Amino acid sequence: MGIFLGLIHHPVLNRHGEISTTAVTNVDMHDIARASRTYGVEAFFLVTPIALQQELMGRVVRHWTDGAGAARNPHRAQAFDLIEIVADLAAMRSRVEALAGVPPQVVVTGAGLREGVVPYAEMRRRIAESDQALVLLFGTGHGLAPEVIDSADIKLPAIDSPENAGGYNHLSVRSAAVIVLDRLLGRSR
Amino acid sequence: MGIFLGLIHHPVLNRHGEISTTAVTNVDMHDIARASRTYGVEAFFLVTPIALQQELMGRVVRHWTDGAGAARNPHRAQAFDLIEIVADLAAMRSRVEALAGVPPQVVVTGAGLREGVVPYAEMRRRIAESDQALVLLFGTGHGLAPEVIDSADIKLPAIDSPENAGGYNHLSVRSAAVIVLDRLLGRSR
Repeated sequence: MGIFLGLIHHPVLNRHGEISTTAVTNVDMHDIARASRTYGVEAFFLVTPIALQQELMGRVVRHWTDGAGAARNPHRAQAFDLIEIVADLAAMRSRVEALAGVPPQVVVTGAGLREGVVPYAEMRRRIAESDQALVLLFGTGHGLAPEVIDSADIKLPAIDSPENAGGYNHLSVRSAAVIVLDRLLGRSR
Repeated sequence: MGIFLGLIHHPVLNRHGEISTTAVTNVDMHDIARASRTYGVEAFFLVTPIALQQELMGRVVRHWTDGAGAARNPHRAQAFDLIEIVADLAAMRSRVEALAGVPPQVVVTGAGLREGVVPYAEMRRRIAESDQALVLLFGTGHGLAPEVIDSADIKLPAIDSPENAGGYNHLSVRSAAVIVLDRLLGRSR
Protein backbone atom coordinates (compact mmCIF):
# COMPACT_ATOMS: atom_id res chain seq x y z
CA MET A 1 0.00 0.00 0.00
CA GLY A 2 1.05 3.62 -0.21
CA ILE A 3 1.59 6.46 -2.67
CA PHE A 4 4.07 6.09 -5.55
CA LEU A 5 5.16 8.60 -8.18
CA GLY A 6 6.25 8.13 -11.79
CA LEU A 7 7.96 10.74 -13.96
CA ILE A 8 7.38 9.69 -17.56
CA HIS A 9 9.87 10.40 -20.36
CA HIS A 10 8.06 8.16 -22.87
CA PRO A 11 5.38 8.20 -24.20
CA VAL A 12 4.95 11.98 -23.91
CA LEU A 13 4.05 14.74 -26.35
CA ASN A 14 6.53 17.13 -27.91
CA ARG A 15 5.84 20.78 -28.82
CA HIS A 16 4.17 19.67 -32.05
CA GLY A 17 1.81 17.28 -30.23
CA GLU A 18 3.63 14.18 -31.49
CA ILE A 19 4.53 11.13 -29.35
CA SER A 20 8.15 11.44 -28.30
CA THR A 21 10.83 10.68 -25.71
CA THR A 22 12.46 13.34 -23.54
CA ALA A 23 15.84 13.35 -21.82
CA VAL A 24 15.87 12.93 -18.04
CA THR A 25 16.55 16.26 -16.31
CA ASN A 26 18.82 16.46 -13.29
CA VAL A 27 16.78 19.11 -11.44
CA ASP A 28 13.60 17.03 -11.89
CA MET A 29 15.32 14.22 -10.00
CA HIS A 30 16.42 16.50 -7.15
CA ASP A 31 13.22 18.49 -6.68
CA ILE A 32 10.79 15.59 -7.06
CA ALA A 33 12.88 13.23 -4.91
CA ARG A 34 13.04 15.84 -2.12
CA ALA A 35 9.28 16.49 -2.36
CA SER A 36 8.57 12.74 -2.47
CA ARG A 37 10.51 12.21 0.76
CA THR A 38 8.79 15.22 2.36
CA TYR A 39 5.30 13.95 1.55
CA GLY A 40 5.90 10.27 2.34
CA VAL A 41 5.95 8.85 -1.21
CA GLU A 42 7.11 5.19 -1.14
CA ALA A 43 9.13 5.24 -4.38
CA PHE A 44 9.79 7.70 -7.22
CA PHE A 45 10.16 6.03 -10.63
CA LEU A 46 12.10 7.58 -13.49
CA VAL A 47 10.56 5.99 -16.57
CA THR A 48 12.74 6.05 -19.68
CA PRO A 49 13.27 3.43 -22.39
CA ILE A 50 16.72 4.76 -23.33
CA ALA A 51 19.42 2.47 -21.93
CA LEU A 52 22.12 5.16 -21.93
CA GLN A 53 19.86 7.50 -19.93
CA GLN A 54 19.07 4.71 -17.47
CA GLU A 55 22.79 4.14 -16.98
CA LEU A 56 23.59 7.84 -16.60
CA MET A 57 20.74 8.43 -14.14
CA GLY A 58 21.79 5.36 -12.19
CA ARG A 59 25.23 6.91 -11.77
CA VAL A 60 23.69 10.20 -10.58
CA VAL A 61 21.52 8.33 -8.06
CA ARG A 62 24.51 6.37 -6.74
CA HIS A 63 26.55 9.58 -6.38
CA TRP A 64 23.92 10.86 -3.94
CA THR A 65 23.12 7.58 -2.18
CA ASP A 66 26.55 5.92 -1.93
CA GLY A 67 29.12 8.32 -3.28
CA ALA A 68 30.64 11.69 -2.48
CA GLY A 69 27.23 13.37 -2.47
CA ALA A 70 25.96 11.10 0.29
CA ALA A 71 28.90 11.98 2.52
CA ARG A 72 28.46 15.69 1.92
CA ASN A 73 24.67 15.81 2.13
CA PRO A 74 22.94 12.95 4.00
CA HIS A 75 19.52 14.59 3.52
CA ARG A 76 19.96 14.30 -0.24
CA ALA A 77 20.75 10.61 0.16
CA GLN A 78 17.43 10.09 1.96
CA ALA A 79 15.63 11.66 -1.00
CA PHE A 80 17.59 9.84 -3.74
CA ASP A 81 17.04 6.51 -1.95
CA LEU A 82 13.45 6.73 -3.23
CA ILE A 83 14.46 6.76 -6.91
CA GLU A 84 14.06 3.67 -9.09
CA ILE A 85 14.80 3.63 -12.80
CA VAL A 86 12.53 1.57 -15.06
CA ALA A 87 12.14 1.18 -18.82
CA ASP A 88 8.40 1.56 -19.22
CA LEU A 89 5.01 1.86 -17.56
CA ALA A 90 4.51 -1.91 -17.39
CA ALA A 91 7.78 -2.36 -15.50
CA MET A 92 6.81 0.44 -13.14
CA ARG A 93 3.42 -1.14 -12.41
CA SER A 94 5.06 -4.51 -11.70
CA ARG A 95 7.49 -2.90 -9.26
CA VAL A 96 4.71 -0.96 -7.52
CA GLU A 97 2.67 -4.16 -7.22
CA ALA A 98 5.67 -5.98 -5.75
CA LEU A 99 6.28 -3.17 -3.23
CA ALA A 100 2.63 -2.50 -2.35
CA GLY A 101 1.35 -6.07 -2.41
CA VAL A 102 -1.61 -5.12 -4.62
CA PRO A 103 -1.98 -3.68 -8.14
CA PRO A 104 -1.94 0.12 -7.94
CA GLN A 105 -4.55 2.51 -9.20
CA VAL A 106 -2.98 4.80 -11.78
CA VAL A 107 -3.65 8.52 -11.28
CA VAL A 108 -2.84 11.09 -13.96
CA THR A 109 -2.99 14.85 -14.27
CA GLY A 110 -2.25 17.16 -17.15
CA ALA A 111 -2.63 20.75 -18.27
CA GLY A 112 -5.67 19.97 -20.44
CA LEU A 113 -7.70 17.82 -18.05
CA ARG A 114 -11.12 19.17 -17.11
CA GLU A 115 -13.67 16.39 -17.91
CA GLY A 116 -14.23 13.19 -15.92
CA VAL A 117 -11.90 14.30 -13.16
CA VAL A 118 -11.85 13.64 -9.40
CA PRO A 119 -11.46 16.94 -7.48
CA TYR A 120 -8.39 17.25 -5.26
CA ALA A 121 -10.41 17.52 -2.04
CA GLU A 122 -12.27 14.29 -2.89
CA MET A 123 -9.02 12.47 -3.77
CA ARG A 124 -7.42 13.75 -0.57
CA ARG A 125 -10.35 12.33 1.42
CA ARG A 126 -10.11 8.95 -0.32
CA ILE A 127 -6.39 8.72 0.48
CA ALA A 128 -6.95 9.66 4.13
CA GLU A 129 -9.81 7.21 4.57
CA SER A 130 -8.54 4.09 2.84
CA ASP A 131 -5.16 2.46 2.53
CA GLN A 132 -4.81 2.19 -1.24
CA ALA A 133 -1.84 1.76 -3.55
CA LEU A 134 -1.78 4.74 -5.90
CA VAL A 135 0.78 5.74 -8.49
CA LEU A 136 0.74 9.39 -9.57
CA LEU A 137 2.04 9.90 -13.13
CA PHE A 138 3.54 13.13 -14.44
CA GLY A 139 4.54 13.71 -18.04
CA THR A 140 7.67 15.59 -19.09
CA GLY A 141 7.84 17.44 -22.42
CA HIS A 142 4.37 18.69 -23.33
CA GLY A 143 2.59 16.12 -21.18
CA LEU A 144 1.53 12.48 -21.03
CA ALA A 145 0.51 10.79 -24.30
CA PRO A 146 -3.27 10.44 -24.74
CA GLU A 147 -2.99 6.64 -24.45
CA VAL A 148 -1.60 7.05 -20.90
CA ILE A 149 -4.30 9.55 -19.91
CA ASP A 150 -7.05 7.36 -21.38
CA SER A 151 -5.93 4.17 -19.66
CA ALA A 152 -5.58 5.75 -16.20
CA ASP A 153 -7.93 4.77 -13.38
CA ILE A 154 -8.27 8.30 -11.98
CA LYS A 155 -7.80 11.74 -13.58
CA LEU A 156 -7.04 14.81 -11.49
CA PRO A 157 -7.97 18.29 -12.75
CA ALA A 158 -5.43 20.57 -14.42
CA ILE A 159 -3.74 23.02 -12.04
CA ASP A 160 -5.53 26.11 -13.29
CA SER A 161 -4.60 29.72 -12.92
CA PRO A 162 -6.92 31.56 -10.48
CA GLU A 163 -9.93 33.34 -12.05
CA ASN A 164 -8.36 36.79 -12.08
CA ALA A 165 -4.84 35.77 -13.06
CA GLY A 166 -5.10 35.53 -16.84
CA GLY A 167 -5.21 31.80 -17.56
CA TYR A 168 -1.46 31.19 -17.90
CA ASN A 169 -0.97 27.45 -17.67
CA HIS A 170 2.70 26.60 -18.11
CA LEU A 171 4.16 25.31 -14.85
CA SER A 172 7.24 23.10 -14.94
CA VAL A 173 6.55 19.40 -14.33
CA ARG A 174 8.53 19.79 -11.09
CA SER A 175 6.15 22.51 -9.91
CA ALA A 176 3.07 20.54 -10.94
CA ALA A 177 4.27 17.44 -9.09
CA VAL A 178 4.95 19.25 -5.80
CA ILE A 179 1.62 21.08 -5.97
CA VAL A 180 -0.26 17.81 -6.48
CA LEU A 181 1.63 16.17 -3.59
CA ASP A 182 0.82 19.14 -1.34
CA ARG A 183 -2.86 19.17 -2.33
CA LEU A 184 -3.27 15.42 -1.74
CA LEU A 185 -0.95 14.85 1.22
CA GLY A 186 0.11 18.21 2.69
CA ARG A 187 -0.33 18.86 6.41
CA SER A 188 -0.91 22.56 7.10
CA ARG A 189 -3.85 23.71 5.07
CA MET B 1 -2.06 46.57 -4.68
CA GLY B 2 -1.39 42.93 -5.38
CA ILE B 3 0.94 40.06 -4.55
CA PHE B 4 4.69 40.35 -5.17
CA LEU B 5 7.47 37.80 -4.70
CA GLY B 6 11.13 38.22 -3.78
CA LEU B 7 13.82 35.54 -4.06
CA ILE B 8 16.60 36.56 -1.69
CA HIS B 9 20.30 35.78 -2.35
CA HIS B 10 21.52 38.02 0.49
CA PRO B 11 21.26 38.04 3.47
CA VAL B 12 20.71 34.27 3.70
CA LEU B 13 22.27 31.49 5.78
CA ASN B 14 24.84 29.05 4.49
CA ARG B 15 25.18 25.40 5.59
CA HIS B 16 27.10 26.50 8.68
CA GLY B 17 24.36 28.95 9.75
CA GLU B 18 26.45 32.02 8.80
CA ILE B 19 25.14 35.07 6.91
CA SER B 20 26.15 34.70 3.28
CA THR B 21 25.34 35.43 -0.35
CA THR B 22 24.29 32.77 -2.87
CA ALA B 23 24.57 32.72 -6.65
CA VAL B 24 21.39 33.17 -8.65
CA THR B 25 20.21 29.85 -10.10
CA ASN B 26 18.80 29.65 -13.61
CA VAL B 27 16.13 27.06 -12.81
CA ASP B 28 14.88 29.18 -9.88
CA MET B 29 14.22 31.99 -12.36
CA HIS B 30 12.31 29.71 -14.76
CA ASP B 31 10.21 27.79 -12.25
CA ILE B 32 9.32 30.72 -10.01
CA ALA B 33 8.61 33.06 -12.95
CA ARG B 34 6.27 30.48 -14.51
CA ALA B 35 4.51 29.90 -11.17
CA SER B 36 4.31 33.65 -10.53
CA ARG B 37 2.57 34.18 -13.89
CA THR B 38 0.25 31.23 -13.23
CA TYR B 39 -0.86 32.54 -9.84
CA GLY B 40 -1.15 36.22 -10.81
CA VAL B 41 1.92 37.59 -9.01
CA GLU B 42 2.54 41.23 -10.07
CA ALA B 43 6.35 41.13 -10.10
CA PHE B 44 9.08 38.63 -9.17
CA PHE B 45 12.21 40.25 -7.71
CA LEU B 46 15.63 38.64 -7.86
CA VAL B 47 17.48 40.22 -4.95
CA THR B 48 21.27 40.08 -5.19
CA PRO B 49 23.93 42.67 -4.27
CA ILE B 50 26.50 41.25 -6.70
CA ALA B 51 26.76 43.51 -9.77
CA LEU B 52 28.10 40.77 -12.04
CA GLN B 53 25.18 38.51 -11.12
CA GLN B 54 22.72 41.33 -11.76
CA GLU B 55 24.25 41.82 -15.20
CA LEU B 56 24.28 38.11 -16.04
CA MET B 57 20.69 37.61 -14.87
CA GLY B 58 19.63 40.69 -16.83
CA ARG B 59 21.03 39.06 -19.97
CA VAL B 60 19.14 35.83 -19.24
CA VAL B 61 15.90 37.77 -18.72
CA ARG B 62 16.37 39.69 -21.99
CA HIS B 63 17.07 36.44 -23.88
CA TRP B 64 13.59 35.25 -22.89
CA THR B 65 11.74 38.56 -23.15
CA ASP B 66 13.33 40.16 -26.24
CA GLY B 67 15.80 37.68 -27.69
CA ALA B 68 15.84 34.31 -29.40
CA GLY B 69 14.03 32.67 -26.47
CA ALA B 70 11.04 35.01 -26.82
CA ALA B 71 10.64 34.12 -30.51
CA ARG B 72 10.84 30.39 -29.78
CA ASN B 73 8.72 30.35 -26.64
CA PRO B 74 6.26 33.26 -26.17
CA HIS B 75 4.88 31.66 -22.99
CA ARG B 76 8.30 31.90 -21.39
CA ALA B 77 8.44 35.60 -22.34
CA GLN B 78 5.19 36.19 -20.44
CA ALA B 79 6.75 34.62 -17.34
CA PHE B 80 10.13 36.38 -17.60
CA ASP B 81 8.39 39.74 -18.09
CA LEU B 82 7.61 39.57 -14.36
CA ILE B 83 11.28 39.49 -13.31
CA GLU B 84 12.97 42.56 -11.87
CA ILE B 85 16.52 42.54 -10.56
CA VAL B 86 17.31 44.62 -7.46
CA ALA B 87 20.32 44.98 -5.19
CA ASP B 88 18.70 44.66 -1.77
CA LEU B 89 15.51 44.44 0.26
CA ALA B 90 15.17 48.22 0.56
CA ALA B 91 15.28 48.62 -3.23
CA MET B 92 12.70 45.87 -3.59
CA ARG B 93 10.34 47.51 -1.11
CA SER B 94 10.66 50.84 -2.90
CA ARG B 95 9.81 49.23 -6.24
CA VAL B 96 6.83 47.37 -4.74
CA GLU B 97 5.57 50.59 -3.19
CA ALA B 98 5.92 52.37 -6.54
CA LEU B 99 4.04 49.59 -8.35
CA ALA B 100 1.38 48.99 -5.68
CA GLY B 101 0.82 52.58 -4.59
CA VAL B 102 1.15 51.68 -0.91
CA PRO B 103 3.94 50.20 1.26
CA PRO B 104 3.71 46.40 1.15
CA GLN B 105 3.38 44.04 4.05
CA VAL B 106 6.36 41.69 4.09
CA VAL B 107 5.53 37.99 4.42
CA VAL B 108 8.19 35.37 5.15
CA THR B 109 8.31 31.63 5.47
CA GLY B 110 11.09 29.25 6.37
CA ALA B 111 11.77 25.66 7.29
CA GLY B 112 12.04 26.44 11.02
CA LEU B 113 8.99 28.68 11.50
CA ARG B 114 6.39 27.39 13.93
CA GLU B 115 5.78 30.20 16.49
CA GLY B 116 3.87 33.42 15.91
CA VAL B 117 2.72 32.32 12.49
CA VAL B 118 -0.45 33.03 10.49
CA PRO B 119 -1.94 29.74 9.19
CA TYR B 120 -2.24 29.41 5.42
CA ALA B 121 -6.04 29.20 5.46
CA GLU B 122 -6.23 32.46 7.46
CA MET B 123 -3.76 34.21 5.14
CA ARG B 124 -5.69 32.94 2.11
CA ARG B 125 -8.88 34.43 3.54
CA ARG B 126 -7.20 37.79 4.23
CA ILE B 127 -5.94 37.95 0.64
CA ALA B 128 -9.36 37.05 -0.78
CA GLU B 129 -11.19 39.57 1.40
CA SER B 130 -8.97 42.64 1.23
CA ASP B 131 -6.94 44.21 -1.52
CA GLN B 132 -3.53 44.43 0.13
CA ALA B 133 -0.02 44.80 -1.20
CA LEU B 134 1.98 41.79 -0.01
CA VAL B 135 5.51 40.72 -0.84
CA LEU B 136 6.34 37.06 -0.21
CA LEU B 137 10.04 36.50 0.54
CA PHE B 138 11.87 33.22 -0.03
CA GLY B 139 15.47 32.59 1.02
CA THR B 140 17.95 30.64 -1.08
CA GLY B 141 20.84 28.75 0.53
CA HIS B 142 19.80 27.58 3.98
CA GLY B 143 17.08 30.19 4.33
CA LEU B 144 16.47 33.84 5.14
CA ALA B 145 18.75 35.51 7.68
CA PRO B 146 17.16 35.94 11.16
CA GLU B 147 17.13 39.74 10.73
CA VAL B 148 14.82 39.33 7.70
CA ILE B 149 12.53 36.89 9.51
CA ASP B 150 12.38 39.10 12.59
CA SER B 151 11.55 42.29 10.72
CA ALA B 152 8.75 40.74 8.62
CA ASP B 153 5.14 41.78 9.15
CA ILE B 154 3.72 38.27 8.73
CA LYS B 155 5.26 34.82 9.21
CA LEU B 156 3.82 31.75 7.48
CA PRO B 157 4.35 28.27 8.97
CA ALA B 158 7.05 25.94 7.70
CA ILE B 159 5.85 23.49 5.05
CA ASP B 160 5.92 20.42 7.24
CA SER B 161 6.01 16.79 6.30
CA PRO B 162 2.69 15.01 7.04
CA GLU B 163 2.44 13.26 10.44
CA ASN B 164 3.23 9.78 9.13
CA ALA B 165 5.92 10.76 6.64
CA GLY B 166 8.98 10.97 8.84
CA GLY B 167 9.61 14.71 9.27
CA TYR B 168 11.89 15.25 6.26
CA ASN B 169 12.03 18.98 5.69
CA HIS B 170 14.34 19.75 2.77
CA LEU B 171 12.34 21.05 -0.18
CA SER B 172 14.05 23.20 -2.80
CA VAL B 173 13.23 26.91 -2.57
CA ARG B 174 11.49 26.52 -5.95
CA SER B 175 9.20 23.85 -4.51
CA ALA B 176 8.51 25.86 -1.36
CA ALA B 177 7.61 28.96 -3.39
CA VAL B 178 5.12 27.17 -5.66
CA ILE B 179 3.51 25.39 -2.70
CA VAL B 180 3.02 28.70 -0.87
CA LEU B 181 1.56 30.33 -4.01
CA ASP B 182 -0.83 27.40 -4.46
CA ARG B 183 -1.91 27.42 -0.82
CA LEU B 184 -2.55 31.18 -0.80
CA LEU B 185 -3.86 31.74 -4.33
CA GLY B 186 -4.62 28.39 -6.01
CA ARG B 187 -8.01 27.75 -7.53
CA SER B 188 -8.96 24.06 -7.35
CA ARG B 189 -8.77 22.89 -3.80
